Amino acid sequence: MDKPLITLTTDFGTSDGYVAAMKATILSIAGDVPIVDISHSIAPQDVMEAAFVLQSSAPYFPAGTVHIVVVDPGVGTSRKSVGVSADGQYYVGPDNGIFTLALNGSRKTVVELDQTRFWRTHNPSNTFHGRDIFSAVAAHLANGIQLDEVGTPIEELKPMHWALPISDDEGIQGWVVHVDHYGNCITNISRKVLSESRRDRRVKCYVGNHIVEGIHSTYGGVATSEPVVLFNSVDFLEIAVNCGNASELMGLAKGSTISLLFQSERQE
Amino acid sequence: MDKPLITLTTDFGTSDGYVAAMKATILSIAGDVPIVDISHSIAPQDVMEAAFVLQSSAPYFPAGTVHIVVVDPGVGTSRKSVGVSADGQYYVGPDNGIFTLALNGSRKTVVELDQTRFWRTHNPSNTFHGRDIFSAVAAHLANGIQLDEVGTPIEELKPMHWALPISDDEGIQGWVVHVDHYGNCITNISRKVLSESRRDRRVKCYVGNHIVEGIHSTYGGVATSEPVVLFNSVDFLEIAVNCGNASELMGLAKGSTISLLFQSERQE
Amino acid sequence: MDKPLITLTTDFGTSDGYVAAMKATILSIAGDVPIVDISHSIAPQDVMEAAFVLQSSAPYFPAGTVHIVVVDPGVGTSRKSVGVSADGQYYVGPDNGIFTLALNGSRKTVVELDQTRFWRTHNPSNTFHGRDIFSAVAAHLANGIQLDEVGTPIEELKPMHWALPISDDEGIQGWVVHVDHYGNCITNISRKVLSESRRDRRVKCYVGNHIVEGIHSTYGGVATSEPVVLFNSVDFLEIAVNCGNASELMGLAKGSTISLLFQSERQE
Repeated sequence: MDKPLITLTTDFGTSDGYVAAMKATILSIAGDVPIVDISHSIAPQDVMEAAFVLQSSAPYFPAGTVHIVVVDPGVGTSRKSVGVSADGQYYVGPDNGIFTLALNGSRKTVVELDQTRFWRTHNPSNTFHGRDIFSAVAAHLANGIQLDEVGTPIEELKPMHWALPISDDEGIQGWVVHVDHYGNCITNISRKVLSESRRDRRVKCYVGNHIVEGIHSTYGGVATSEPVVLFNSVDFLEIAVNCGNASELMGLAKGSTISLLFQSERQE
Repeated sequence: MDKPLITLTTDFGTSDGYVAAMKATILSIAGDVPIVDISHSIAPQDVMEAAFVLQSSAPYFPAGTVHIVVVDPGVGTSRKSVGVSADGQYYVGPDNGIFTLALNGSRKTVVELDQTRFWRTHNPSNTFHGRDIFSAVAAHLANGIQLDEVGTPIEELKPMHWALPISDDEGIQGWVVHVDHYGNCITNISRKVLSESRRDRRVKCYVGNHIVEGIHSTYGGVATSEPVVLFNSVDFLEIAVNCGNASELMGLAKGSTISLLFQSERQE
Repeated sequence: MDKPLITLTTDFGTSDGYVAAMKATILSIAGDVPIVDISHSIAPQDVMEAAFVLQSSAPYFPAGTVHIVVVDPGVGTSRKSVGVSADGQYYVGPDNGIFTLALNGSRKTVVELDQTRFWRTHNPSNTFHGRDIFSAVAAHLANGIQLDEVGTPIEELKPMHWALPISDDEGIQGWVVHVDHYGNCITNISRKVLSESRRDRRVKCYVGNHIVEGIHSTYGGVATSEPVVLFNSVDFLEIAVNCGNASELMGLAKGSTISLLFQSERQE
């Protein structure tokens, strides 16, 4: 590949031309860079959802990819604009906690984007840094400009308070952190956290007004329209209904709790 | 063109990062391949709708194009993963009937995708073959790997039962098989089937609580807000309302019937 | 960049394969041209909305870009198909006023697209000129074919009646012309028009059942959930709610009026 990829994750929707103005800016600076849309359907101003979606896809992109993330309720205020390098990839966007999950404790270099010569204009719009700062800087990074040229090093990113599950020897309680397009409810309980607490014991899941026995490996592991608990494709526990919409059928939403109780018997 | 195109047709929506994870996988293997989204708005688990949409666009793509289609309620179960070569194009996805309409009786070569060295990982997710198997195999095909390297030949694809219209000398009865974004109702009656039965006679169309005389060639052939029956851009009979939403205004949905009665007079 | 960009703005939605059929046609003729989606979510048949969205993004694209715009209720009737060259960019689509705002009085060359050898087929579908005429002609333009080869010069484009704001020495009355994805309400009052009438006086905005004092520079210039009036990223006056949906919260829609009253005091 000649040029690295640039990805876009925003809450802009696709009806207004805002995303196109960003792509036009990128392609005016880095003409042959491939652009991949991660999502433009993040709920308006939902920084946590953007962080979750970015985490679910960023790891699959090749080294050198530049991720632009713009869910930015504080645009034009004193919040910083930042560029980050971590795990061989780059991240550009507002400093509001949006990169927390994707970076996940990795070693990183952070700069505040203060070098206006890499912006689209020295007088950026107060309402659209996505076009005037982030797209332009990302395009320059894709062109091979170094991170320390586009900004001044800073120590830390703004943290985001991400709810962790609670566990003791008898079980784990977690929360639904994302409801996907199918109505599948993804929780904050990772395969790693569960296997450490569980120690091969059988599991009973209390969720909404249902009790679901055991953790399956496929949606088709239960009959059509039955609830099923399984690990999703990025190894977080997910509550689904085989060929159905778990959020609607089980009355679950972002924030709903799931309790796992470990049984005395071993799993088969 | 250096590299063939890859297209994507899924029921993933664009809010979750699932599509992006597929594109990341493709571009990690075949860095400079152009990717075209056919649709990610197929109704969840609606294999027949995916088959219809694929049929409406696949023929316009150049030779060598690799179509990935992922509407896959049986993911992780015993349903096969397949690759198909037909009419100079390639198709990759689950063996659940999804390719039936696009292939439409063409001579084809089919393989079961069992060569794990062409997958993203030897341990694919049980819930996301789109990322771990189909995207990776399609990218290798785009790189020039041959179909018989990525899988083992099998005789047949799983068929799909697609309702055909019923006709006799007096008329034809068909069904709405797709309601498009405008509310236009596309039926399963092709121009070919109609012209064979009709033998130049005039046609009266009974649909919902409307009787529509004749078949027009443009939406503007009737007054604004009036119903119109015409052949759509892939030569299937379509029920529309000029500058209006036929599905809403005429109470039509997927499965609604349309009856065509041939008149004794000839068409003008 | 080897090839210029092609952009697409349509009311097709993305669920039916119509957009994909256009891209397939483009890429069959101009294999390596990058395609950027401006929007496929224009409200069905809403020519004015398409004109507005095109105006908001076209200026940011590099010279040579070919913009295809297809919101085309008159497809197949006597309305002309046109190609336009202006400000170093090209525009291809129906002659129904759709390019008015983007062209904005620029010097332009206009041709009627009557050279069928640059179409996808000599017998184009009566319902899908987007695929059979506009996509094919745009791809040939991207390949370097000249505008005067694809059509015959005509004098003028069909005009569109775009409501201008009314002003006198005491104030300005304008209208909401677009409600964006966030519920921000964009008016037809430009920064230029306002500054000419205002002469540095303070401004009071009457909109819905709210009175908003002054014009801010950022959403965050007011408390969360409070209304704010500011210039948007293309310098038109916008009514927003900080971290909220102005259209819903203030009962505004396309066509709602906004009255600005100039105060005797000067702005600070």
